[in-house]
Amino acid sequence: MTNEVKIGIAGLGNVGVGVVKILQQQSELLSRRSGATLSISAVSARSRHTDRGIDIGAYEWCDDAIDLARRDDVNVVVELIGGEDGPARALVETALANGKHVVTANKALIARHGEALAGLAEKNGLALNYEAAVAGGIPIIKALREGLAGNQFSRVYGILNGTCNYILTTMEESGRDFADVLAEAQQLGYAEADPAFDVDGVDAAHKLAILTSVAYGCPVDFDAIHVEGIREISAIDIAYAAKLGYRIKLLGIASKGENGIEQRVHPCLVPEKTPIAKVDGVFNAVVADGDFVDRTVFEGRGAGEGPTASAVLADIVDIARGTILPTFSIPVADMRKQPTASMADHFGAYYMRLNVLDVAGVIAEISAILRDEKVSIESLLQQGRKPGEAVPVVLITHECREASMMRVSDAIEALAVTQERPRLIRMENFE
Amino acid sequence: MTNEVKIGIAGLGNVGVGVVKILQQQSELLSRRSGATLSISAVSARSRHTDRGIDIGAYEWCDDAIDLARRDDVNVVVELIGGEDGPARALVETALANGKHVVTANKALIARHGEALAGLAEKNGLALNYEAAVAGGIPIIKALREGLAGNQFSRVYGILNGTCNYILTTMEESGRDFADVLAEAQQLGYAEADPAFDVDGVDAAHKLAILTSVAYGCPVDFDAIHVEGIREISAIDIAYAAKLGYRIKLLGIASKGENGIEQRVHPCLVPEKTPIAKVDGVFNAVVADGDFVDRTVFEGRGAGEGPTASAVLADIVDIARGTILPTFSIPVADMRKQPTASMADHFGAYYMRLNVLDVAGVIAEISAILRDEKVSIESLLQQGRKPGEAVPVVLITHECREASMMRVSDAIEALAVTQERPRLIRMENFE
Repeated sequence: MTNEVKIGIAGLGNVGVGVVKILQQQSELLSRRSGATLSISAVSARSRHTDRGIDIGAYEWCDDAIDLARRDDVNVVVELIGGEDGPARALVETALANGKHVVTANKALIARHGEALAGLAEKNGLALNYEAAVAGGIPIIKALREGLAGNQFSRVYGILNGTCNYILTTMEESGRDFADVLAEAQQLGYAEADPAFDVDGVDAAHKLAILTSVAYGCPVDFDAIHVEGIREISAIDIAYAAKLGYRIKLLGIASKGENGIEQRVHPCLVPEKTPIAKVDGVFNAVVADGDFVDRTVFEGRGAGEGPTASAVLADIVDIARGTILPTFSIPVADMRKQPTASMADHFGAYYMRLNVLDVAGVIAEISAILRDEKVSIESLLQQGRKPGEAVPVVLITHECREASMMRVSDAIEALAVTQERPRLIRMENFE
Repeated sequence: MTNEVKIGIAGLGNVGVGVVKILQQQSELLSRRSGATLSISAVSARSRHTDRGIDIGAYEWCDDAIDLARRDDVNVVVELIGGEDGPARALVETALANGKHVVTANKALIARHGEALAGLAEKNGLALNYEAAVAGGIPIIKALREGLAGNQFSRVYGILNGTCNYILTTMEESGRDFADVLAEAQQLGYAEADPAFDVDGVDAAHKLAILTSVAYGCPVDFDAIHVEGIREISAIDIAYAAKLGYRIKLLGIASKGENGIEQRVHPCLVPEKTPIAKVDGVFNAVVADGDFVDRTVFEGRGAGEGPTASAVLADIVDIARGTILPTFSIPVADMRKQPTASMADHFGAYYMRLNVLDVAGVIAEISAILRDEKVSIESLLQQGRKPGEAVPVVLITHECREASMMRVSDAIEALAVTQERPRLIRMENFE
């Protein structure tokens, strides 16, 4: 393909509408930048006659999206259907088999079937681009794959889900609890009616799986990710964190250490002075720690019509310019499975909130348990005395192995004075 | 060129040493990522036998850098000599004329001669890459040229000079004045013995000129930039800004409006809540406001061996992968000169600090001058009374034309009660 990019778009939800708008509104600009004519040949969506605020009358209509992959007047298929299997997967496979480049915003698809699809794309000399699948408008795939290609990454992490970040930010600002803020977010359209995908960390995990593969040259391994969401985060933990100089963020973190690749999505205490702590509301951010470049931070809108469509267009412009790179930075044949570091071996500091009876000797009992597991205390907060009643005790540990911390937690839970299982939140070292 | 990238490096200062280190240390990784063998054929520097902490014994030595451009065993010339003319320019011109791709970190060269050199590169089908010239390790050229290619930019701005940001951050943290902090920065090696290039804004302006061209598709026009440095910033202004909820940063700002392209480098009051306000010390950051992507922020180290070398390597990897794009995103032949917006027409808010005698009616006199120029006051700070003595009066205006503000300044200076010319610092709207 040299000078004419003929696009078939499957899915006309808000991202699809955004893609059509950019192609219609910036046609001349895109052509100057890409050296090619970018035009839409055909579109497909569930319903043809929905009013979407755009004119699609000039495009061929396909009732079945998969027909886009078989049209002679399409050489780039844009898959915006979503879902890890079903029509999205069938469309992408058929497009690649039929010699069409593919651009997709489908994180679940890439996280689950990325390696097989990449193999198909590479075998046929085609692009399989998915910038829009991770962190919306932020060109982070390009940054890792190209802009920082001279680096080995000790760690890549970020705020990858805008819904969770909006909820946590609002909880912090208002002092309200999770359920209350979630309900409001649903009313405002920032959270889905079924919020599980977002608030349980699955969406962030899909994105993390992709980032890990690009950063470390290993096959996408979604199942290796330790995933926790934000349902258990309470206003009281956010308030204590603030008192100690931290904010709570849902992070996706990939790192490489002695035990292999560690991938985890969980709430995290981050020092309020770090760049990631300052990313509020629906914004996303990704931090890449490279051995030569040091810390780089990329921030922007992680979702929405315009930002996601912007990422789709960048992928199309790359194809128009003839930039066809291996899907995950290195060819599938060269990707190497790397050991998965076990969470039991995770090494880090912990925030622990206990709910214990305020009786003589309780701190001594707790301290003894920590000492026995060689976990040392960095700070301890016990505010207000209520002799005989349940009170919160909050402590922050120095770095230790997660297995030790789990045994600490079990032992504290078994104490007679303990009213509920200790609440643990991991901390991350940002030095 | 397909599978063998043979590199000639001109200049072995800290960036050159960093480039050699990456090529030596990450050889296998780079080859997997680029699909090519990257090797150094020859090097050139002022002195052959300086101890640089790297082994260059395996590379051919050229006493004269320009010989690198004529060697058969070199297909990519890395220019790290610096300077807008002289040997750097001669080397790049000769390399491009002789069919060698060029990677450079030389912002002055690209800011001054970018258009002519880009024309030469494009005519010969060669890459002229300069990611390292702007914002060190941050892949911002790639982001604007590729990752955000679907957007028109209303504004691109950033903290482009780490030395100035270090000085301003330290002034703010310590309350000390410019000269004092500069002297310390010089001792620490964060500022040059001759600091003019950095503190007078020239370095930031070189980088801005390049960003403007990439963002707006117009020829690089360094001379069109309004440039002010940070020498006039005093501790008192930083303290007043903080009191009003702002920080002072040296920004490079390119924007497109009704009057054309506005390019300016000057100190700026930025609201403390914006991402750019939180970029401290030697870090750089660039913000691109795109019409579809909305706000994107890119942060990282703007200088130093590792970060700058990381950017050089990204450029080399692009060449190894066969990604040869027009230098400024669109071909030189398609670049269009755009009108330069005059600073007199700049529209924005202003911080103004007056030094006036504390006598009855002085605020009335000042207010009348502002009213006559239709400049309205957003807030006014007059702290402490010292009847008959000189006191500072600080005010922030609503948005107005710069020409009006200059007349206000002249008129206030002419008042009998005024002790010195009003100090004006522009503000930027970050909504």
